[in-house]
Order: sequence, then C-alpha cells, then structure tokens
Amino acid sequence: MQPVSRSVDEHRASVLAAVGPTPVVDVPLEDSVGMVLGGPLVARADVPPFDNAAMDGYAVRTADVADATPEDPCVLRLVGDVSAGRTDPSSAAPVVTPGTAVRIMTGAPVPDGADAVVPVERTDTGRFEHGPLDGADTSVTVRSPGRGHVRHRAEDLTVGDTLAPAGTLVTSRVASVAASVGLASLPVHRRPRVVVISTGSELAADGAPGPGRIPDSNSYLLAASARNAGAEVVRRGAVPDTVDALRAVLDAAAGATPADLIITSGGVSAGAMDVVRHLLTTADEATGATVAAVGMQPGKPQVLASWREVPVVAVPGNPVAAFVSFEMFVRPALRRLRGEPDVAPPTVERVAGSGWSSPPGRLQVVPVVHEPGGAVRPAGRRDGRGSGAHRVSALVTADALALIDPDVDEVCPGDTVRVLLLGG
Amino acid sequence: MQPVSRSVDEHRASVLAAVGPTPVVDVPLEDSVGMVLGGPLVARADVPPFDNAAMDGYAVRTADVADATPEDPCVLRLVGDVSAGRTDPSSAAPVVTPGTAVRIMTGAPVPDGADAVVPVERTDTGRFEHGPLDGADTSVTVRSPGRGHVRHRAEDLTVGDTLAPAGTLVTSRVASVAASVGLASLPVHRRPRVVVISTGSELAADGAPGPGRIPDSNSYLLAASARNAGAEVVRRGAVPDTVDALRAVLDAAAGATPADLIITSGGVSAGAMDVVRHLLTTADEATGATVAAVGMQPGKPQVLASWREVPVVAVPGNPVAAFVSFEMFVRPALRRLRGEPDVAPPTVERVAGSGWSSPPGRLQVVPVVHEPGGAVRPAGRRDGRGSGAHRVSALVTADALALIDPDVDEVCPGDTVRVLLLGG
Repeated sequence: MQPVSRSVDEHRASVLAAVGPTPVVDVPLEDSVGMVLGGPLVARADVPPFDNAAMDGYAVRTADVADATPEDPCVLRLVGDVSAGRTDPSSAAPVVTPGTAVRIMTGAPVPDGADAVVPVERTDTGRFEHGPLDGADTSVTVRSPGRGHVRHRAEDLTVGDTLAPAGTLVTSRVASVAASVGLASLPVHRRPRVVVISTGSELAADGAPGPGRIPDSNSYLLAASARNAGAEVVRRGAVPDTVDALRAVLDAAAGATPADLIITSGGVSAGAMDVVRHLLTTADEATGATVAAVGMQPGKPQVLASWREVPVVAVPGNPVAAFVSFEMFVRPALRRLRGEPDVAPPTVERVAGSGWSSPPGRLQVVPVVHEPGGAVRPAGRRDGRGSGAHRVSALVTADALALIDPDVDEVCPGDTVRVLLLGG
Repeated sequence: MQPVSRSVDEHRASVLAAVGPTPVVDVPLEDSVGMVLGGPLVARADVPPFDNAAMDGYAVRTADVADATPEDPCVLRLVGDVSAGRTDPSSAAPVVTPGTAVRIMTGAPVPDGADAVVPVERTDTGRFEHGPLDGADTSVTVRSPGRGHVRHRAEDLTVGDTLAPAGTLVTSRVASVAASVGLASLPVHRRPRVVVISTGSELAADGAPGPGRIPDSNSYLLAASARNAGAEVVRRGAVPDTVDALRAVLDAAAGATPADLIITSGGVSAGAMDVVRHLLTTADEATGATVAAVGMQPGKPQVLASWREVPVVAVPGNPVAAFVSFEMFVRPALRRLRGEPDVAPPTVERVAGSGWSSPPGRLQVVPVVHEPGGAVRPAGRRDGRGSGAHRVSALVTADALALIDPDVDEVCPGDTVRVLLLGG
C-alpha cells in the first residue's frame, strides 16, 4: 500500500472519526475528578438546605431589636442554645417568641419565630467562650437594631438546578459542589483504555542495552502522556520487529477487555523491516488501513487502521516525531474518547525569540521553550546543522510546540507564531 | 488565645516555614512522572549510543560516490544487509570496503568502513519491499554524490551531561529522555502524604443528611485539590465537633506513618463549638499554635499548629473560604513539600469584564470565570446582595481567582486585575 498525501488537519479528522466517547458510568465523587460529565449535573438538594445562621450570635425577631439604642438597649431572655449539627431530636427545638432569643452558632438552623441573627460582637456578651451555654447566662443585651445574617434555604442553589452540562470537566470544585447538592456519584465517561506499544528490534526494554541496541523511551513518553490525558494505560515496551511478536501484543490489546485505542510507535515508514505498516496493511485482523504521508515535520509517515475493531494510531519511532504525533493526533483522540466537546489542539500566539528555517509545504512542529520575557525559541542544543529541536534533548526543556504553517519557509525573530502549550 | 492580625503574605510565610521538602527516593521512571527531581538528571549513556543510519538506504564510502552522475553512475557491490536491532553476534558484521555497499535501515549501526548513507530514493532501487534482501540483489546503482544521513554517536547527548537540575518537574518528556540516556529510575522527592479532615457536627458523610445537617463537601474539594497537586491523600470527612473525635483523627494522621501535612476545615472561628481552634490551642499534643486573623476575604480566620510534630493547616469551613485558603496557603506548602523551587501562587494579568466592590484593608480573593473575549468576571449567580462569588455555585464555573489588593475598594469594568489560574 502506497502512502496517501494528507494535511495535518485531514489526518487528525481521520483519527477522530475512528473514535467516539466511551460509555457513561456512575462513578463515586472522589474518583470522578478529572473525568468528563456524560450527563448534566443536576442539584438533588437545596443549598443551603435550611435557613441557618451566617454568624455566631443570637437568633432574634427583627421587630424586637428594631428600636434598640446604646442608651435604651433591648434585653432578651435566652430560651435556648443551638449550634450546627447539635439539634437534639429528643427535645423540642427552641422557639423564639417576642422578648426572647436563642444563642446560635454559624451554620445552625435558625429557630422558628426568629428572622435574624445578631452577631455576638454587637451584643454586651462581646465574645463566646468555648463550650456550652453557662447556666448563669439567662439574657442578652442588644444596643443597636439587628437584621439579616441568615442564609436562606436555597438562596444559592435549588433542587433541579442544572449546574453543569454534559461535557464539563469534573474539577475538584465541581465534585465538591456535587456533594453540596446531595450527590454521592456523577455520570462520567469511563476512562479510555489505551495500550501503548513501542516497536523496534533495536529497543532494549530496561537496563543496559547491548551492541546495536538503544533504550526504549517512546513507551514511557506515550504512556505517561496518555495517563496525564486521563487514560488508563497498559505499556508494552520494546516489541521486536517480527510479525508474530506484533500480532501477539495487538491481539492482547484487542482481547477480552479490549482497549479503546492502541498507540504504536515505530515501523510505519518504507523500510524493509517496518513491520507495523506491513502487518496493519496486510493482516486479516486489520481493517481500514490508511498509510499517510502527512504534511508535517517531523512525523510525516503515519498509519491508521483497526485491529479486531480497535482503532490503532501508528506513529513514527523517532522520539520527537512520536511526541509531536501524540500532541497532534493522539491527544485529540483521547479528548474525544473522554467525552470532551473541544478536541482540537488549542493554540495561543507568541513572539519568536530567535529565527529558524521551516520546510515549505509542511506544517513544522517545533519543540520550543519560553524565554523569561515570554518569547519562544527552539528547545534543545543548537549546532551547526539546525535548531536542535529535532533532538531528544529538546524534550527536556520544551514547554510548548510552535506550529509553523506550510507556506512559511523562515521564521524571523519577532515574528508571531502559533504555539500549543504543553502540560506534564 | 486571641487572634493575631496578619497579611496573606505573612500567613503564607508562616505556613511555608512549617514544611520542608520530603526525602529523596529512587523511583522507577514510569512512576516518577509528576514528581520533582531531588538531584540532577545526568546522562548515563550517549545519545545516539553509536553511529547509525538516519534513513533507509545504503551505507557507502563517500569517496566512492563523490563522482557519480546520471550518465556515469557508480555501481557498488552489496556485501550485507543490516537493520535496526538485527545485528547477529554469531556472524561477522559486514564491512564496507572500496566499491562495496551495505543495505541499511534507519537506526541500524553504520558498518565499519562506511561514512555515509545514500537514501534508497536516490538510487536505482527506488524503494524497498518488505522483507530481507533478495538474493538477486547483488549491487546498487547510485547516480549522484551522497554524503551524510548518519546520526553520530553522542551528537545529541553525552555521558555525564547534566540534563536537568534538582527541582525540575518530571514530565512525560523528561522521563522519556531519562530512558534514552540509560536510566531506569529517577531521584525524586517522595509524594507528600496529606490527611484531609473535614470537621463539623452538622456534616453528613454520605447520602441524605438528616434535619439540621448538610453534606460534607470540603473533604472532596481539599482531597482532590491536594491529589491534583501531587499528594497522596487520606480523606476523613464529617468529623464531629468533639474533642475526642478530633483528637482521634489527628492522632491517626500523626501515627505510625505520619502525614507530612494535615489539612482541616471548619472550627477555626470564635464560636462556642469551634473545636479545632480549641484543641490546637490547648491540647498537650499541639505545639506552636497561631490563631490568625488574616487580611483576606473570604478566609479571615486561620489556625496553624503542629500535632505531634505534624504541621496542621486549619482553614475555615465555608466552602469558598476553604477553597481560597487551599490556593493561597496549602498549595504553596504542597509545592515546597514536593521539592518545587517556586512555591508562591503565580499570577497573570487580566481585564475585569464587570465591576464589583472589595473590602478595604483585606486582600479580596474572588472566584472568577473567563469570558469569551478573555476578560474575567465573578463566577456564580449574581443577586441583589453581591457578586455571587461567595456562593458554592461559583465553584462550578470558576477558572481563576482574582486577587484584589487591600487598598482597592472597587473594581471597575476595564480595570487590570491580577488573577491566579486554576487547574483541575
């Protein structure tokens, strides 16, 4: 199968068409953080659930204290003491009748009959000592009018309110509000299951590689990136370039609990031993294969197929190309799997702090690093042969990817460039 | 103990003084992502580890093909076939002598004698079929001079290079480069162990709360925020306002494997049942307590102490105050525990898209949300009484915190405000 030429956007559209959102499952609040709502978040309880004190003080009738002055204070008889959560169901709740008050702590239900809380600082009591009401405290003296300081039932949120639509990321804050409105779980898209396969007979899985071998690094890169993007990941490093070895790991990934997405690196070019491309374009288990020559540097050779109906995104083995391919094609696919509404890479504008050349006719994707002033320059060590951004050393410091359009053949210092900010 | 007045910066400095970086441990690469280097990342191997082909093609001697032209091509005898990782130690590696070439695939070691790779596209072969060299292929015809296309040993990274200093966040990219330079693990600060305790007799841990009770939401907020900030978290929701209950959870947190930090919410004000403040300022197990009236809205009452030598940051129970306190005080402490060099909340400037009032003399911390044009406005539903940003509903949509200086009493539309961007 010969490659078809494609733009970056065309190839991304193909990858996105191969995946859809994972099923919606009910997940306990604590585990739902970082996932995406598969249905709206609807309040099951009012917030607050009952009228309660906004301050420590005394629950009163506004009418009783309306005329209080320093010279002519209002003295109210204490008929009870309530604090948050201390309502004793075995005894009658205190009721505030004319001329009486109830000592009340922040968050406690406002007693029947009362419609305001006078903060303790505005009474002759001044402040409370720790502990229950002293038997000697039989009255409270108020020397100014008081009103308010009551948080009314449902003044913040009401049963049935839709707080967030499907597609919303569950942050720690969203989870806590869900708890406030009476929910113990949330409907979210289950985490995408991803299998990362790093191929190459030259790869050593761990430890010191032998002659002609290099350490596998792509499986770490792709697995950690997918995990940071919210996926559950199985990492298969250093799979040799044989049909049998590759078939075995693909079959395992598409087995009893099939992955939602398989990501391979290496073996997609036109070399005689490029077994990923060979197998995905010839095996009976593989369907719908596309071999693409994508207008992107690095990362031109790309393969997209399905293995026993599981989508396979096959990216090149060069580490910078694999990384760029993840950000341009795989991360958007993971966003769609997670149920996120916006899946395209979001870009911002930056000023180029140095210049470099770019290949005409291809989108150049350059690992860059922000300088102290906010401009960006290619990451990695420069040498006489180029920016250095094609080297793995660039990956250490890069904090963004500059996207240089195909019609640009040179970036000059001071030019505005689009960049994609990188996370962890 | 009466409160001491403190600015936000003063209280943050006190909290930071109570914690230090966790011990440095050696962690396998795959688990190190998201942690912070406790020592420099030093290359243990060259990258590349040996001279290798940058393209699929033929390894040649540059001198042999220097004079090749379309009319007077250079025909070289094939003496071998190498691909990445297929070096057979039992047979002698092919050597390129004058007049010969070796078929070579990307990543394979360049044979002795050769100093360049001629890409297959530039030879009469045109392209390779998948599989080993055909016995009929005994020569290759080159019609133009060829040089280069060799990646030289150590041209990217050299043994002993320091790639990243202590204090660097281990991203997926850093972990993959560490693999490339021969490392299987990294020295990182162990994850901070954090215990989150939500106090309040009015709190119901799960399910439908009874009369006078409200759901515990702060433990979800604080636990998930701490987890997102890189901590291992134990969550203790809905601890009642009794000395015995609080002592028990604090003792557990400071037990056999003590936490690095305890975060409590609720019970820090001057109410008669504010047991956190009471216990941390009176118990024998508690030392160095400070009760602070911090110049911040919300989140004025704060307590800092140690319980059996474990630092305790005690924040107010109001959900928005607890959230703001986490971002202003707890997150910086977690950064320090993780070994991050920069711990203060990083702010950026934004334009206010609407106006609101701010209390003089206190730093106002306002949950805000970005509008489509990039300006920010208070999150949450507005009502007649204020911006709505003090309500839990504001937490659903807030994506930043605006920090309004104490000398500002009104923010007008169009004003520049400092904001702290929020993560998950």
